[in-house]
Amino acid sequence: MSVLEYISRRNPAVERTLLRLLPPGLEPRELAEASRHLIKAGGKRLRPCLTLACCEVVGGEAERALETAAAVELLHTFSLIHDDIMDHSSFRRGVKTVHRIWGEPMAILAGDALFAKVFEALSLNASRIGLEKERTAELFRVMSRASFELSRGQALDLLFSRRLSLREEEYFQMVSLKTGALMWASATSGALLGGGTPSQVRRLGEYGKNLGIAFQIQDDILGLVGEKEELGKPVGSDLTEGKHTLVVSLALRTLRGKERRRLLRTLGNPSAPQEEVEGVIALLRERGILERTRGRALEFSGRARRCLRGFRRSEALSFLEELTDFVIERRM
Amino acid sequence: MSVLEYISRRNPAVERTLLRLLPPGLEPRELAEASRHLIKAGGKRLRPCLTLACCEVVGGEAERALETAAAVELLHTFSLIHDDIMDHSSFRRGVKTVHRIWGEPMAILAGDALFAKVFEALSLNASRIGLEKERTAELFRVMSRASFELSRGQALDLLFSRRLSLREEEYFQMVSLKTGALMWASATSGALLGGGTPSQVRRLGEYGKNLGIAFQIQDDILGLVGEKEELGKPVGSDLTEGKHTLVVSLALRTLRGKERRRLLRTLGNPSAPQEEVEGVIALLRERGILERTRGRALEFSGRARRCLRGFRRSEALSFLEELTDFVIERRM
Repeated sequence: MSVLEYISRRNPAVERTLLRLLPPGLEPRELAEASRHLIKAGGKRLRPCLTLACCEVVGGEAERALETAAAVELLHTFSLIHDDIMDHSSFRRGVKTVHRIWGEPMAILAGDALFAKVFEALSLNASRIGLEKERTAELFRVMSRASFELSRGQALDLLFSRRLSLREEEYFQMVSLKTGALMWASATSGALLGGGTPSQVRRLGEYGKNLGIAFQIQDDILGLVGEKEELGKPVGSDLTEGKHTLVVSLALRTLRGKERRRLLRTLGNPSAPQEEVEGVIALLRERGILERTRGRALEFSGRARRCLRGFRRSEALSFLEELTDFVIERRM
Repeated sequence: MSVLEYISRRNPAVERTLLRLLPPGLEPRELAEASRHLIKAGGKRLRPCLTLACCEVVGGEAERALETAAAVELLHTFSLIHDDIMDHSSFRRGVKTVHRIWGEPMAILAGDALFAKVFEALSLNASRIGLEKERTAELFRVMSRASFELSRGQALDLLFSRRLSLREEEYFQMVSLKTGALMWASATSGALLGGGTPSQVRRLGEYGKNLGIAFQIQDDILGLVGEKEELGKPVGSDLTEGKHTLVVSLALRTLRGKERRRLLRTLGNPSAPQEEVEGVIALLRERGILERTRGRALEFSGRARRCLRGFRRSEALSFLEELTDFVIERRM
């Protein structure tokens, strides 16, 4: 089954669950609207589908993991809202960011409110299916560990952004916390709810983590060469915002002399002219830096795929397999 | 047993648990330090002791609820850090606020990191004592509900701060979310862990909520008439920051003409001269407004006390009883 087919089949139930967790009648209205804003703006819903598929692949019905699937999307959205404040980003998913519409204080609270709902959702899930107490505690442990690692990853991102260069291992430490941890939790929680054995739970978690890193590397590439319409933000904005992406990390290690100076003129310079930004992107392409970055994405995607060995063939398994290609081939 | 005796007897174990949840070796160091900053700065630790005492009063050993007691302190501290960002406060517990030292982005993350630890702590607690699955799910539900209400209360506070006046029922709606919810959760979770019956859990929750409201009203009074050294912030700062306290709500409904104009000149005016601020405070005293505010605090303290009827006499019960006086008599 193709990735988009699986997602479109599972999505209606995920959306209904998200809506049930954040009903429109919540008071105060501003908080409710600010919390729902980015969720309503769409997004691929990869993480919830990852949870559902991991539940299925170990033999559970996808429906068993519904609230937890919604929870990982809430956790993801919470971190996007706070991240956008910290990065002073103005657009996300093709709409204005939460703090640009409601101001920073309300955006902080909107994130906090979604974060609070994460654990309510887990608790509803565990009660509904009568999950045994050891798995219930483990489910909460997994999600709180991922939440904590998420904030560690964001903190590293923030600290690194004050530095000019970043070693590759620092980059991987950051993204395995910032992106890997939540994908790890999405997969692990699904496998736990589906009744997976400890080894299955561990392997699917590993799958999620590697998938997340591959996903993030592709995000870094798209942040430079993606189309504005598809990304919902200007081309090359990662460069002018001075984000430490793998591309930049490799470029700073590779480029010398005039080329290096060209890169440095646009890096973290929001007022760099668009043609100069595009010139730098062309340079990164010519010097093989985008290709090398893509090589690393392929490597992590391959690692993720290998974690799937030994699972019984099913539609959910095909989805997980195809997802390893999808995350590094996507254009948005 | 007096309130301070109970606290000082229980506190060492609470502090050890907090430290175990936030070990100094956490990376990145800046995040670890920013998260621990306000916790290390002290605080009364009323909420964790409330959890421990409610566990005891229904027949459990206090030790059963240790990680959850730490969790409510983490949740409280998380909300203080985000609150300080939103209010642009510079001091708290006699030290600089987190965002003043590490900047707003790191302060947002420090709050998020503590929030994440809340649910890890609950999960550790449930596993350690082998809590049955229904109570485990309930424990998580209680804490996530309180977290959500906390952000609703903060959002109301934020929205109300843009208005000149506030009706008394709006004030009580706000504080029962902002302060009542967490005290409710502190008490409820302790009673759940101690093995309380549904009726005991409900009554202790009700106790916590009323205690929290009384506590907040006293906070409002201290925000005006407290001593700088004890509060860790300037006298009358609640007035010049334009906070909607019960005192201000009553004052705006009562004062007329010249007196009202005097109040309005200082309200939300950070550059109001200190002698004018003190003059307004004297006026609030003369016109009986502080006395009427105190009357409301007494009312909620009395409601809390009545929720304790029927519990077996114990040191924990005396603590809870005396706490109802303590919260409205405290000077800091």
